[in-house]
Formats: sequence, structure tokens, C-alpha cells
Amino acid sequence: MILNSHFSELPAHYLFHDIDLRVKAYKAQHPDEHLLRMGIGDVTRPLPRVIVDAMQQAAEELAHEETFRGYCPENGYEWLRQAIIDHFFIPKNIHFQPDEVFVSEGAGSDLGNLSDLFDSNNHVAIMDPTYPAYVDANIMAGRKITLLPCLKENHFVPDLPAQPIDIIYLCFPNNPTGAVLTRDQLRLWVEYAQHNHSLIIFDAAYEAFISSPDIPHSIYEIEGAREVAVEVHSFSKSAGFTSVRCGFVVVPFETGLQPLWMRRQCTKYNGTAYVSQRAAEATFTTEGQKGIHENIRYYKTTASLLLNGLRDAGLEVYGGENAPYIWCNAPNGWDSWTFFEHLLHRCQVVSTPGVGFGQCGEGFVRFSSFANRSDVITSLQRIKERL
Amino acid sequence: MILNSHFSELPAHYLFHDIDLRVKAYKAQHPDEHLLRMGIGDVTRPLPRVIVDAMQQAAEELAHEETFRGYCPENGYEWLRQAIIDHFFIPKNIHFQPDEVFVSEGAGSDLGNLSDLFDSNNHVAIMDPTYPAYVDANIMAGRKITLLPCLKENHFVPDLPAQPIDIIYLCFPNNPTGAVLTRDQLRLWVEYAQHNHSLIIFDAAYEAFISSPDIPHSIYEIEGAREVAVEVHSFSKSAGFTSVRCGFVVVPFETGLQPLWMRRQCTKYNGTAYVSQRAAEATFTTEGQKGIHENIRYYKTTASLLLNGLRDAGLEVYGGENAPYIWCNAPNGWDSWTFFEHLLHRCQVVSTPGVGFGQCGEGFVRFSSFANRSDVITSLQRIKERL
Repeated sequence: MILNSHFSELPAHYLFHDIDLRVKAYKAQHPDEHLLRMGIGDVTRPLPRVIVDAMQQAAEELAHEETFRGYCPENGYEWLRQAIIDHFFIPKNIHFQPDEVFVSEGAGSDLGNLSDLFDSNNHVAIMDPTYPAYVDANIMAGRKITLLPCLKENHFVPDLPAQPIDIIYLCFPNNPTGAVLTRDQLRLWVEYAQHNHSLIIFDAAYEAFISSPDIPHSIYEIEGAREVAVEVHSFSKSAGFTSVRCGFVVVPFETGLQPLWMRRQCTKYNGTAYVSQRAAEATFTTEGQKGIHENIRYYKTTASLLLNGLRDAGLEVYGGENAPYIWCNAPNGWDSWTFFEHLLHRCQVVSTPGVGFGQCGEGFVRFSSFANRSDVITSLQRIKERL
Repeated sequence: MILNSHFSELPAHYLFHDIDLRVKAYKAQHPDEHLLRMGIGDVTRPLPRVIVDAMQQAAEELAHEETFRGYCPENGYEWLRQAIIDHFFIPKNIHFQPDEVFVSEGAGSDLGNLSDLFDSNNHVAIMDPTYPAYVDANIMAGRKITLLPCLKENHFVPDLPAQPIDIIYLCFPNNPTGAVLTRDQLRLWVEYAQHNHSLIIFDAAYEAFISSPDIPHSIYEIEGAREVAVEVHSFSKSAGFTSVRCGFVVVPFETGLQPLWMRRQCTKYNGTAYVSQRAAEATFTTEGQKGIHENIRYYKTTASLLLNGLRDAGLEVYGGENAPYIWCNAPNGWDSWTFFEHLLHRCQVVSTPGVGFGQCGEGFVRFSSFANRSDVITSLQRIKERL
């Protein structure tokens, strides 16, 4: 058996696994210290009651012959796909058919699995720094990757590629920098894709954190995008579903990719858990919307606290306004891992080293507003006092 | 953007989608007819109470700050991986480390996604007829496929390949034929793989239906298998989890594939739903075991009824003893789709055309013992009277 040799081109471990090892090592030496986890982008607020009720009711149905359900449709129940369209797109006057929406167990899988649709000879452009899975999935597939530097100088918004690119990954609001694009900026990318016959894979996982009216929540707010873009959504960050597992991809008919993605999913996926689909549906109820907006407001308040607190501590910070992440320049010319280690050892704060998101992230760390509020306050105090 | 051209080599639709279309067309013309669904291998028995209780309790935890959980480990919680080892392997004196077990949202995804680990230049051997996803996933990856005919003549057990093969997919108890392998027969495959440096992907999804003591439940019952085999398991058919979504893969360290699969899962998967992992854990309780064994006994009784009833109706039938599927030779020289259509139009019975599982399945249909018991009884009456 011949292995996929591209695996040998990957860094041996995934970023969060490396952080986990360092944190475990610290924990082993300091078993009594309470760690202030502001690293991995994982939510901490409990689910609204109405969502948990829907999950329990769905589970209850599986206990009785009359209401038991087996396999769910590979692309998700139509009631959920229609609810997604009604909630996310109709209010923006964007129209999709339910068959253009594919429910899944999460955006992480979708972003990785979309790779199956494309030849290995595509030239891919990916923001640097970025969510590591985009790069890793394309290394695994043996594709040529051009990194698009996102630096202080360009406000962490990449310049359009100088050469023609086949597939472009864009994530706005951005993980890890918290940068956003205005409609005018995003329009330039859609026009680039139209001129170069490129496909944009638009990761909208953090759209719920946008509050400025000039920032688009969806690439389909831009005319012409449905010919050149697929859009990946997650309930993880908007509704706190990291352990519930539900996301969706919009694959417009105009991209020509809808039949391929349907075929891929019918072959390699057996549908999203029924309980998770009912949980997603419950996010659209009045009470569900109220609950998840309260949680998002909570995280956004935390983000403001963090942004202002870090700034008060004399640190240079970006993002955090329409995004849950704060991108913090390391002081004293430290590199990312040095800053990470100082934060861990002096302040017991777990951050995410920026260089783990790409070479252009060197010299930064990412703070997450998903952290526990009191941990954030303690972190800020310690950072001011001890760093 | 350049598409993966191998998609064009696939049949346009997935088998079950084609069946669905024909059934929908029939339903549209005969809206009042009750269809007797004995086709797709989907379970129908409700979940045992203890499993639903565990799911509801897990959902409840997500409603409260103190018990809320975010991302689950990409390879599953260790308590579940250890429970899997304790239940499936320790009683057979087979020992694995928890890191050799990967929990997932289902065997279907695992069987498709394992493809990521291998070069496109591997020569793959797949039983014919077979679960269509093995072939389709390897077509998508552009691999050379040799089909291993499973015919009446060889009792639906393929001969060892004449040439060296890199990757072999084996599914026993088999879907769709219901054929099984004895330990001695399976040993020949392990020896073949050792001699040819092949990897066996062993699909053990139906092992819970084995009752004969000479039939192995796991390929690891054969000495030397841990060097040459990964094994894919599902809770779908054993515990009725088709809508709950949980499975697991065993990737022994000795295969050399464990780090690659870990890397693949950490990149393209964000862990299995917490509720589903607690559901899987609950299958191992005394009450859980009692409940799922009752369900399996129920299906096995249905399989006997079907096997004997079809035989009484003068049909030639195979499988159904250590497997939930009955493989039925079409009468009157009909091909699979003709038999399917006669069953649908004359008896309102939905079967699965054997040819959908491969060319060697032509002339057969598959009946599933997961069907509703009273539907099975009605089906058998109609088949006797109307066919």
C-alpha cells in the first residue's frame, strides 16, 4: 500500500494539539494553578433552554416506535434547510433553493471535505495567517498554495493575488486576526474571481459577531457571487454548538458544484444527527434567537473588555470589534511562542501563538473572547502586573 | 478552478437516491398505497430507554454553565474509546491502546475518508457486489479498482486476487449478500495481505448479527491482522444509531497509519457530538446491552421469517443467518431492476436491486430484516400470491 506522500509535508502535529501538550506539561508541574484559557476558540456559554428542550424532545422521539427515525437525508432535513434560508438569506433578499443548502456536522469537516471536488492541479490562495486546516487540507491534496500575507501594513486584509488563482479561501470576520471586509472590499474579490474563473470558498463561521452595518454577513450580498463562491457556515460560534455539531454549506447551482457536492456527501456522509438538526432548528425560534443573541452579546462585551484591557496594558491589539478574536502584537520583540510561554508561565494565561496560523502570524498571539468572563478579568490584571 | 475529473466517471446518482426516485414516482401515482419498505438497510426499532436517558442527560449538561462542554476530542472521549476496547476486544483477549481507537460520527464517513491516507496509485480490490461507497470513494480518488466477483459459485466469498493488490476492502457479514467468513477463510486474507504488503479495510458494521461460533466478529481475532488491517465499526446496525451517528475505526499502531489518521481527523474533523458519544457509552451498560440484544434478536427473527418465507414462495435465497440481509435470486430470469419493479408494482414491496451493488449483483435483490415485522409478513403473503 502506498501512502499519500503529502502527509509527510505537513507539520507533525496540528497547532491546537501542540498547545495542548505545552499546557499539559505546565499543568503537570503546577497542578494547583488555575489556568486562564483564552486560547482555542471554543465557546463556554451554556445553550439556551429552548435548544436543549428540542434536543431532549428529539432524543425522546427515538425511544418510541411511532416516532423513531433512522437515517436522516445526507444533505439534511428540508425543514432545516428551508429554515436556514429563511433566517440567513431571505431577510437580505437573497434567494436559494433548499437543494443549494447542505446541512453537516460542522464547518471544519466541510472545509476539509470540499477539497474532494477539485483536481490536485489547482493553484490555491490562502490568507496568512489563517485557520490551519485550509492549508493542511490542501497540502494533503498536493496542491500548489500561494499564501496571501495579512500584515499590519495592509490592516490584515490581503491584496488581490498578482497571478491567476483557481481557488481562494477567504474567512471574514477573520480567524485569527479579527479583521473584516467592507462590501466594497469584498466586491473586489468577487470581481477578481469572475475575471479569473476562480472559486471563492468563503468561511462565514463568525458572521454572527458583525455589528457594523457596512460589513457583509454573507458573500452573496455581493452581486455575482453566486457564480463564483460557496459559503461555509457553522452553528458552533453563533449558537454555541461546538459539542452539538451542526453547520451548513451553501453551494449555489450557478457554481456548477452542487451535483458534485451532493454526490460526495451521498457517498461519504450519512447525514447529520437528528438531535443536532432539531437543535439547529430551535435556534430560529423567538426564544432561541433571544438566547443566542444574549450569548453573542456576552462574548462581544468580553471582546471589548479584552481589547480595551490589553490596550491599557500597553499592548498593540487588533480585531475584536466585529469578531470574537483579538490579535495582539507581542511586546519586546518577542516571537509568538515566547509570548505564549511568558503568558503561560507568568500569568497562567493560555493564548494561541500567532505563528501557528502561518508565518505572517509570527510575533502575534490570538486571544479569544469565548473565554470565561472572570478569567478574562483575572488575565488582564495579571498581564498588567506581571508581564 | 479545475474539477476533480474522476467525478465524471461515477454513475450520476447514488443507488439509494435512484431507488428513492422510483419509489417517489410510484407513490405519486398511488398515493394511498402503503409501501412495504424492505430495501435500504435502515433500522426501525426504537432505542432502549437507558440510551435515550443518557442522551437527554448529556443535552441537559449543555444547558448549565457548570456542566457545559465545548469541542470534544477529535478522536473521541477517552472514556468512550476505553469502553469500546473493554467491550469489543478485551473479551476476545485482543488488546489495544485508546489511541488506536477513533470515534466518529459514522462508519460511512470513515470508509470514505480513509481514502485520504493513500496515494491515487494504489491498486484497490473490492468485492462485487458491495456497498457502493467503497467503489465510489476510490473512483473519486482515481484509483485502479479490481472487482472480486462474489457469485453463487463461490458462495459469495471472493477468491484471493491473482495479482498483488495494495488495498482490499472486505465486509463480513456482508452487505448485500449476507455471506460470512469462517476464521480459516479470513486467515487466508490476512496471510495474503502479509505476503503482498497489502492493507485490509475490514468493515465490521454487521458483526452484532453473528451467532455462529466459528465466524469471527473482528479481523483481529486472526493472528497478524494488526499489522495489515484497519477495522471499521458502526453503532448504526448494532445499536440502532442511524440517526444518532456514532461509529469507530481501529487503526493499530502496527499498521503505521495511526499518526496519519490522527492528523487527518484533527484537520478535517472536529469530534463527534457529545450527546452521541454518551449514547454510545450507554450501549455498554447492563440495561443498554439487554435492550440492543433484544432489538438484534428481533431483527434476526425477522431475517429467519424472511429467509423461510421467501424460500416457501419458491425463491432462491442466501444470507440472513449471521447477517441482517437476505440475497434473493430473481425468478424467471428477470434482471434486478425488473424484479424490483415487479415487487414494487405487484406487491408494494421496496427491495434493493442487486445490480446497484455491482455487476455481479445482477439478477438479485436484497431484502433487509430491519423492516417492520408486520410489513414483512404482508410482503411474504403478497410475494406468494402475486408474484
